[in-house]
Amino acid sequence: MKHTTRMVEVRTKVLKENDVAARAMRERFRRDGVFVVSIVSSPGSGKTAFLERTLVTLRERYRTAALVGDLATENDAQRLARSGVPVKQILTGTVCHLEADMVSRALENWDHGPLDFLFIENVGNLVCPASYDLGEDLRLLLFSVTEGEDKPLKYPTIFNTADIAIISKMDLAEAVEFDLQAARQSIQAVRPGMEIIELSSKSGKGMDRWIEYLIARRNEV
Amino acid sequence: MKHTTRMVEVRTKVLKENDVAARAMRERFRRDGVFVVSIVSSPGSGKTAFLERTLVTLRERYRTAALVGDLATENDAQRLARSGVPVKQILTGTVCHLEADMVSRALENWDHGPLDFLFIENVGNLVCPASYDLGEDLRLLLFSVTEGEDKPLKYPTIFNTADIAIISKMDLAEAVEFDLQAARQSIQAVRPGMEIIELSSKSGKGMDRWIEYLIARRNEV
Repeated sequence: MKHTTRMVEVRTKVLKENDVAARAMRERFRRDGVFVVSIVSSPGSGKTAFLERTLVTLRERYRTAALVGDLATENDAQRLARSGVPVKQILTGTVCHLEADMVSRALENWDHGPLDFLFIENVGNLVCPASYDLGEDLRLLLFSVTEGEDKPLKYPTIFNTADIAIISKMDLAEAVEFDLQAARQSIQAVRPGMEIIELSSKSGKGMDRWIEYLIARRNEV
Repeated sequence: MKHTTRMVEVRTKVLKENDVAARAMRERFRRDGVFVVSIVSSPGSGKTAFLERTLVTLRERYRTAALVGDLATENDAQRLARSGVPVKQILTGTVCHLEADMVSRALENWDHGPLDFLFIENVGNLVCPASYDLGEDLRLLLFSVTEGEDKPLKYPTIFNTADIAIISKMDLAEAVEFDLQAARQSIQAVRPGMEIIELSSKSGKGMDRWIEYLIARRNEV
């Protein structure tokens, strides 16, 4: 198709601008001592339930806030606000991912006070967010037992850009005949050595291990 | 951002080219008497299980084939090939949706014989596929009980472009405390009057109603 070259050019330019904005944010986060975690997943993998439980656990000991990206509705922000930590929604309209610039603008004029942790919940999508650095310290990929064990093989790019895979909804593993061994193998095939934690946001099982991991990563910085 | 205008221009051009290609395909499908159904959903909503069951049911009485879009792997095509109908995989690389042109190229040199039904399984994504007409007669949106009842409110564009919503994995409804009433209300809020069918590809419950609906739609053409 004739348009391909021009699309690629524009795409390269957008990504370059994004990288510049992301770098500036990363420097700022480092200076402010905030450890930033972005979360990517399919729509419906349980990002919000996971984040809600994480925020409630952390808030006892850490100053924490969350940004939530969605095409439409403030539902997730309202839900997360129940955790008692500052939460802000970013509405992307028809854009299938967050960009560094959107995060940067959301942080302006947001008086959340000093932070230890900032979470950024991306738009539910396993393709587009892969290309956009948000200045995060840790990119977390959540996928649920209901999605199929070969997801990593089908969406290798996003698994490759992530630092840790969380397998969520483990409470449903039996009902959907989830094959944990096969899922682990798929992840390792795409990203050998990747950290994997299985948990259930509903029962709380596995949350301890995730919180321990998170705090250890923060202390390394 | 400075690049916005140029992005919009290029996007408009790509979409126009897509519409031209889609129109040509729609004419061709009509001429050949093929009823074309495209399927969109999140990754892991059960598109392939649903399609497999549909193909097996239809093949007794109808000449049927399927095209399957994925970023990577031929897993879905291999799985669907077990149904005994002709199946072809379209690998999109890093592109988050199918385009009319990709479908057109996949149909070239594919000797599937005369068809009554052609199914096109899009890349698992609730954002990007919304903008691309594939020349289909029916666009089907699948969403599973594990994804949350407010999905339609969060992804209104794709629900607006679809003709029918299938709520899948109904066998898990109780385990995830799915609120069918709330899900139906979300759909009706975004697209009043939309046809909704609940089913389980696992148990087969609800499949009859879907097949009846499908055949009725074909007979209308």
